[in-house]
Amino acid sequence: MGFQNAHLAKSFSAAKLAKTNLFESPQMFCDVYGLESGQAQKPHAHSEATKFYFVLEGRGMFLVGGERRELGPGELAFALPGEEHGVENHTGERLVLLVAMAPNPNRG
Amino acid sequence: MGFQNAHLAKSFSAAKLAKTNLFESPQMFCDVYGLESGQAQKPHAHSEATKFYFVLEGRGMFLVGGERRELGPGELAFALPGEEHGVENHTGERLVLLVAMAPNPNRG
Repeated sequence: MGFQNAHLAKSFSAAKLAKTNLFESPQMFCDVYGLESGQAQKPHAHSEATKFYFVLEGRGMFLVGGERRELGPGELAFALPGEEHGVENHTGERLVLLVAMAPNPNRG
Repeated sequence: MGFQNAHLAKSFSAAKLAKTNLFESPQMFCDVYGLESGQAQKPHAHSEATKFYFVLEGRGMFLVGGERRELGPGELAFALPGEEHGVENHTGERLVLLVAMAPNPNRG
């Protein structure tokens, strides 16, 4: 068990999307992603996991299962197992996401 | 796959904590909880699931694994399998939470 603060935990990198883990268990991980303007997570899929992106700050262009949509704070995109998903910060402002995936592929 | 808006989806009930499902799969469910002043989710545990509460609006008193803490927007409490957890809206304002649990006990 524990507590976390997504706004204190968030980070950014000039090199690429920055991931900060908030917690993890075998069942799930939960990260904060920080994306500078122009940064992206390329479209990919997880064969056995469900994942969501939830927008905390800024706006991004999300691709899920072949559909593109711009989302802002309070909006969420989710991908079921095998569904392609990705996000791009197409704006001039920073984008901050809460991201959870289940099960956790990094821990059996 | 799909998209959701937690702020449009949230709901409240004078009778008790209101849960709105944003999406679910066998691996995970994701809900928005709306708690009027004084409403609570009583402490309980899930023997096989990891769960988190993430505060979207308002403030609440969270109990996780024997520790009590007041959390506000951007803060998160998580409980591993078997760990007791609950939340009470001890304030005079509404409390809105993003809640995810993995795996989803409602769907094998």
